[in-house]
Amino acid sequence: MKLKNPLDMHLHLRDDKMLQLIAPFSAKNFSAAVIMPNLVPPICDLKSLKAYKNRILHACKDESFNPLMTLFFKSYDEKFLEEAKDEIFGIKLYPAGVTTNSSKGVVSFDIESLKPTLKAMSALGIPLLVHGETNDFVMDRESNFAKIYEKLARHFPELKIVMEHITTTTLCKLLKDYENLYATITLHHLMITLDDVIGGKMHPHLFCKPIAKRYEDKQALCELTFSGYDKVMFGSDSAPHPKNDKECCGCAAGVFSASVILPVLAELFEKNSSQENLQKFLSANACKIHNLKIEKDKILVLEKKEWQVPYLYEDAYNQVVPYMAGKTLKFQVRY
Amino acid sequence: MKLKNPLDMHLHLRDDKMLQLIAPFSAKNFSAAVIMPNLVPPICDLKSLKAYKNRILHACKDESFNPLMTLFFKSYDEKFLEEAKDEIFGIKLYPAGVTTNSSKGVVSFDIESLKPTLKAMSALGIPLLVHGETNDFVMDRESNFAKIYEKLARHFPELKIVMEHITTTTLCKLLKDYENLYATITLHHLMITLDDVIGGKMHPHLFCKPIAKRYEDKQALCELTFSGYDKVMFGSDSAPHPKNDKECCGCAAGVFSASVILPVLAELFEKNSSQENLQKFLSANACKIHNLKIEKDKILVLEKKEWQVPYLYEDAYNQVVPYMAGKTLKFQVRY
Repeated sequence: MKLKNPLDMHLHLRDDKMLQLIAPFSAKNFSAAVIMPNLVPPICDLKSLKAYKNRILHACKDESFNPLMTLFFKSYDEKFLEEAKDEIFGIKLYPAGVTTNSSKGVVSFDIESLKPTLKAMSALGIPLLVHGETNDFVMDRESNFAKIYEKLARHFPELKIVMEHITTTTLCKLLKDYENLYATITLHHLMITLDDVIGGKMHPHLFCKPIAKRYEDKQALCELTFSGYDKVMFGSDSAPHPKNDKECCGCAAGVFSASVILPVLAELFEKNSSQENLQKFLSANACKIHNLKIEKDKILVLEKKEWQVPYLYEDAYNQVVPYMAGKTLKFQVRY
Repeated sequence: MKLKNPLDMHLHLRDDKMLQLIAPFSAKNFSAAVIMPNLVPPICDLKSLKAYKNRILHACKDESFNPLMTLFFKSYDEKFLEEAKDEIFGIKLYPAGVTTNSSKGVVSFDIESLKPTLKAMSALGIPLLVHGETNDFVMDRESNFAKIYEKLARHFPELKIVMEHITTTTLCKLLKDYENLYATITLHHLMITLDDVIGGKMHPHLFCKPIAKRYEDKQALCELTFSGYDKVMFGSDSAPHPKNDKECCGCAAGVFSASVILPVLAELFEKNSSQENLQKFLSANACKIHNLKIEKDKILVLEKKEWQVPYLYEDAYNQVVPYMAGKTLKFQVRY
């Protein structure tokens, strides 16, 4: 199976030693990836953004990989956004406190206070990428955020709004109601429900935000994805944490899937859909939605050849347990 | 504050070295406790039951503590039950596979197949203690079991059925609908929701079965408990696991609360109810429901004197992290 220009529209690469360890997994499998800005402190200016991009490029060891940079949402004036426009792919909005390193996020969704920034983004064609969760009960956080998505979509019809890593039937439906709403879907949310996280034993390596939901939610995500629905893009939300921060008494949220994405997607689409739809989900939909031009095609060849996912990736500084650790996969990428 | 004859109507004491480490916590705080039979293999005969009781008494180092033994539910004939009657407090039913060491549990709730045993139990006045969960989606398991409770309650009106460690509004309501249904409620389910388990970071030491539910469920449990409702009894479901089996990649279910129960209950009831209702919840209701006679009164004196719960209890063989580890409590028991 050949896959052309895979795109990861939602990726956490972290920084420092962790960046060194994990960036190559994404770089060798993808043409480009949208890089999340929730470092500590978050990326809010172009100097930090460019420096981070350089660190990423250096860590990638693969010149064919293009990190699509994002700023952390706050009030930005139009002049700054004009200057930033060519350096960034979009701006990522986090409600305060909903996930890792989001404490500096948005506290109020009052339209008037958001308007200057969002109007300027609309005019300049800068997409708004949103982690759509409230601070309510964990199973309701995403569906309770739907009203905020609706408000944003209605007030800013020219703004391209991406509902990131959606996990509920509520947002699968909402996506069809507003022309300017788009969505990314992760690999793991196509595969797991809350039962996999806490239904048998408790599995910290499947603990992420938004938390995996019910079977009917997973089913709705699968239907959108496997049908090749054109407003849906693949975004891994791959997010490593050191093993010691996962297997402990207060486990951090995030699934590190970067190392297994293409083989697992190939297997899923072979079983449930078609290679054509996989190509749409993994690349074509995003290119069309965001008018992305890939300068040099990157073709990934997947062979049917079993391999076992390692239990651990490690260097002298970090140990990371990957998604599907120890599992046998049918496909592997020929490098 | 003085508490008379506290009873823990649902307790896991395990066996071997773990039993040695944890049994004294229950023994010094309670007059008696109902001991769960889900060892490996489960307790299904009187020889094992008596031997286990002796091991418990030996581990307790406190002669004033009475372990109320239970058998693991399976088909038992009337002759055996007659013989067992005076040795046991009740029989604990586990649906197969719903919790720790329940693989030998009940597969079908077909009334005809259960009838011989349950009829005999009814006639002999042996209570049926039930872990009421199906194998459905984790948040629905208990409320989906309600129909089985109803079926049992209707078909065996003379059988005393205890719905163990209830966690949902569904069962709080059901309790009032059938005269022969009773319930135990744990300490932790009065205090936590799923948000505490996976809403922020993921907390393996709060991971238990049934899983903590929604705020409205916790509210319903608190209303029953703090009102002193007479069909509700305290049952801790205290269930230790070695620290390494909790903080790992497949965490075992169970909260070890035995060491903090009385101080935390005292604080909760001081804030939300009265000492009289605490006495009902902790002892009087159970004595009345089960016609229990306490041979020698045990009075626990609680002083208002802050102390910090240890982060760990350990001996040469086991390390156990207690509920509320590291927290400061207002009351302490004077021994």
